[in-house]
Amino acid sequence: MWRGGTLRGGQLAYETWGRLNRARDNAVLLFTGLSPSAHAAASAEDPRDGWWQRMIGPGLALDTDRHFVICVNSLGSCFGSSGPASIDPDTGERYRLTFPDLSLEDIARAGHELVRALGILRLDTVMGPSLGGMVVLAYAALFPGGARRLVSISGSAAASPFAIALRSIQREAITSDPAWRNGQYSPEHPPAVGMRLARKLGTVTYRSAAEWAERFDRQPIRADLRESTPFGSEFAVQGYLEVQASRWVNAFDANCYLYLSQAMDRFDLAAHGDPQAVLRRADLAHALVVGVESDLLFPIGEQEALARAFESSGTATRFTPLPCIEGHDAFLVDTEHFGRVIGEFLAA
Amino acid sequence: MWRGGTLRGGQLAYETWGRLNRARDNAVLLFTGLSPSAHAAASAEDPRDGWWQRMIGPGLALDTDRHFVICVNSLGSCFGSSGPASIDPDTGERYRLTFPDLSLEDIARAGHELVRALGILRLDTVMGPSLGGMVVLAYAALFPGGARRLVSISGSAAASPFAIALRSIQREAITSDPAWRNGQYSPEHPPAVGMRLARKLGTVTYRSAAEWAERFDRQPIRADLRESTPFGSEFAVQGYLEVQASRWVNAFDANCYLYLSQAMDRFDLAAHGDPQAVLRRADLAHALVVGVESDLLFPIGEQEALARAFESSGTATRFTPLPCIEGHDAFLVDTEHFGRVIGEFLAA
Repeated sequence: MWRGGTLRGGQLAYETWGRLNRARDNAVLLFTGLSPSAHAAASAEDPRDGWWQRMIGPGLALDTDRHFVICVNSLGSCFGSSGPASIDPDTGERYRLTFPDLSLEDIARAGHELVRALGILRLDTVMGPSLGGMVVLAYAALFPGGARRLVSISGSAAASPFAIALRSIQREAITSDPAWRNGQYSPEHPPAVGMRLARKLGTVTYRSAAEWAERFDRQPIRADLRESTPFGSEFAVQGYLEVQASRWVNAFDANCYLYLSQAMDRFDLAAHGDPQAVLRRADLAHALVVGVESDLLFPIGEQEALARAFESSGTATRFTPLPCIEGHDAFLVDTEHFGRVIGEFLAA
Repeated sequence: MWRGGTLRGGQLAYETWGRLNRARDNAVLLFTGLSPSAHAAASAEDPRDGWWQRMIGPGLALDTDRHFVICVNSLGSCFGSSGPASIDPDTGERYRLTFPDLSLEDIARAGHELVRALGILRLDTVMGPSLGGMVVLAYAALFPGGARRLVSISGSAAASPFAIALRSIQREAITSDPAWRNGQYSPEHPPAVGMRLARKLGTVTYRSAAEWAERFDRQPIRADLRESTPFGSEFAVQGYLEVQASRWVNAFDANCYLYLSQAMDRFDLAAHGDPQAVLRRADLAHALVVGVESDLLFPIGEQEALARAFESSGTATRFTPLPCIEGHDAFLVDTEHFGRVIGEFLAA
């Protein structure tokens, strides 16, 4: 692992769409945000909609008539790839907090090993949103020449103190939940109170005040979600947070969340050397940096600075700030804006 | 109380600076944000610096050579005014959750009764920042002609869904702390874990990403604050949050916080009727609405909309958006900007 420690018998879950061409030069490797699985779109094996369903497919932005798209579940996550919730082959028990220190560099390296295992020497494009928008930078730093093009979506060259503050509060909500039991909870009894708080706060940081003013204003909560407890929820926006949080508590492992969240805080492209030099060494032909003007967690200035670093490294760079009002999560919902920008870049 | 219920034998803590003139028309009533006491500045009785120390005094923005300044501890708070932590004279026990439903209108009314008790028929100015910036609107709605001028600082005509979301997460952190005991904690054993989380999140919402990038960047935490526990704090910004939270846990009562926080969520000037008509009826000669461009919790658009409502009501209105980078809390720290704007308005 990048910070020391070893992972034995690690596994990586991934899905693919489209076909690898004979030259093996049409692959797009897609890293995810913090919480999604590798199921970015429906497939023959799993027909459920994926988290980027309207972006991946024939004629779509990630055009599977042209590209072989690979989406990987991040190392450290809990959807098939090895992480704190996986069984340690040495002990037969879950790793929990014995999982080695995780960094975004490890996530990038795991993706790279998958690419090599698939017989691909050079990616057409390495791409990722949010956490994935940082992982692609680790990828570029660690594997010079590993990709011809790079797309960083709503990412950053380093976690800002503001984002660190917000994420550290989310982690503290979990670690201070007695049910966390210093990581030794059973899967049937997760630290649900802390996870709910963490997810609610996450949801606030992923969206925007403007969107919610439009969407919820001061409407009262749906009658079936109203709580009669003291200080219970009264407004529609609180009901929305509650629904988001309830879904998540049973869908994501708390220790995996803690590892991935901390790995984001620790990421800093400058740890690899002067960013300009690092990006030059990456030997990319083209870079696309996309961001959203209403993003609270990864403010647009961070994408602008990243784009400037690419430019000054000599990479042909396109920087596209988008006027979406959905904040950080816009890449998940505003397929129209994102589809056009990313589709045009990949088709060029 | 405005939402029903009665408070018997209520008390109100206040401090004053300067002297009431013979005409009794030079009084400035100052409401506070959510957490401060009435000790806005040093006085003969209490020489410690107050929370607006550099704003109140001879020759300062709130010029005590000209004005009689009154600062009131909000009803529902815990610094001398009646609130959930006070003793209910009927039972000899703390009110805790039997304190009646609190609204910002009750805080305004309590301030008004103080003003009347001091023999003042009409205030020169009613003023308040943050929560107080909303209370002054309740004051204007409830007491037409009660003040000649109004200053609303970093406030809003109604809580936004975004602010409601953030505050409801803070409240949930407290109410889901087992030590809260449904409000029945003893003062020696407050729900410290929930209060820490609530204050840390509050601190994030009170400042700005830009300020912290400048102030903390990615510096490591001070060695004496570093935690060796899993996922313990590593960055300077986390140490800052920790210091803020530790101070607060022992300084503020959890139930009082819950009451005041919920009262903010529930405030909506429109509950008093069409805002334009309500503000016209208030019969103010001048209004000053100040806000900060980097404010996350009360975005500048909310002050702009409030200023427009004042204008359309026929009140001579000044709207001053300030370029401070300290976010919502700027009024506490950027005395230069705020002192000039408020000083000029009061001197006019």
